[in-house]
Amino acid sequence: MSSIKYFDAADFQAMEKRFRTTFFNSLSGFKSANLIGTQDTKGITNLSLVSSVVHIGANPPLMGFIMRPVSVQRDTYQNLLATGYFTINHVHEGIYAAAHQSSARYPAEISEFDAVGLNREFREAVKAPYVAESRLKIGLVFREQVNIHANETILLIGEVAEVIVSEDYVSEDGYIAIEEAGSLAISSLDGYHRTSSLGRFSYAKPDRDLKKL
Amino acid sequence: MSSIKYFDAADFQAMEKRFRTTFFNSLSGFKSANLIGTQDTKGITNLSLVSSVVHIGANPPLMGFIMRPVSVQRDTYQNLLATGYFTINHVHEGIYAAAHQSSARYPAEISEFDAVGLNREFREAVKAPYVAESRLKIGLVFREQVNIHANETILLIGEVAEVIVSEDYVSEDGYIAIEEAGSLAISSLDGYHRTSSLGRFSYAKPDRDLKKL
Repeated sequence: MSSIKYFDAADFQAMEKRFRTTFFNSLSGFKSANLIGTQDTKGITNLSLVSSVVHIGANPPLMGFIMRPVSVQRDTYQNLLATGYFTINHVHEGIYAAAHQSSARYPAEISEFDAVGLNREFREAVKAPYVAESRLKIGLVFREQVNIHANETILLIGEVAEVIVSEDYVSEDGYIAIEEAGSLAISSLDGYHRTSSLGRFSYAKPDRDLKKL
Repeated sequence: MSSIKYFDAADFQAMEKRFRTTFFNSLSGFKSANLIGTQDTKGITNLSLVSSVVHIGANPPLMGFIMRPVSVQRDTYQNLLATGYFTINHVHEGIYAAAHQSSARYPAEISEFDAVGLNREFREAVKAPYVAESRLKIGLVFREQVNIHANETILLIGEVAEVIVSEDYVSEDGYIAIEEAGSLAISSLDGYHRTSSLGRFSYAKPDRDLKKL
């Protein structure tokens, strides 16, 4: 451990564009690795790697993700609005290279499923494709678009309609062992990580010592 | 791997409240482990463990986090609005028990720094306390409150004013090696995880094979 550096606004301004993007994308900490599946009204499927999926609430069950400004073509966004559905699929080590490749900018008429070699899985309840290879799949109904004025990004929120997962990973108290399912974490734009559990802590109260569950 | 289970709305409704919360908090995948530092106008400091910090943008540099409905006392929220500042501090293995304990509901007049045994660090640019022990600290100016109507949660957004990190962790291309800094990931409400890098991938383009960086 050596020299602590204090980066300020002048340093930020001096950063080259790509450096700046990589640097600031590192700051939030580890991110979830998910593939978002959608389809257009003609049935062309789309797949997009997203590292900004965030829990919004449990009752009703809501999840969201950040989408960059829609000034350019965003298939995921257009499909989600057109059909009202999307899927979130956890990425594990067996599919992470394909998942990363899906972030390439393919034309709208090409399905990333075919381009990167992942399989579609369909269910009646959700008008969007799941990633067959994923071990934790979530089907959602689009609920709300929240506009962020500071930089014209968008928070898209869906309500969970279906969760597909092996019962082996679901604990008696509702905890899903996503590490055992092989779910990966992402750092910055392109770093992928396995995890190694340090355990779970009991619910924290002011006058009680924590226990490991 | 055995029995795949399809959970639907009827299953969700049948879930006991705590099970439901733990279950849905598992779905987003791995989350960042951060301590958010604020202070009130009298200088009483507050610390709160947050697993919903998300990257919003690099230019301007924006980060956000989800806050539950403010129908009850939320010190972090009140302080952030009153002073206009907050800090985000990565959690590593040396402080994760203290970090988890900070999620206990202490009275407003008690500082979680004292209650859980972490040290404050102050800098001129930011009217909020950093966690001295953290290895990646971010000072932010409050920019925007975004209301989520679906469940009355709030997305709070700040602009990065300062980043404090050892130069050892900052790569030539701007990537901050948060795994080397010991930053942890969280699963559901109470699971903590170390990470193990699988490497970084090159920028994905349609007609080019991925390379490991």
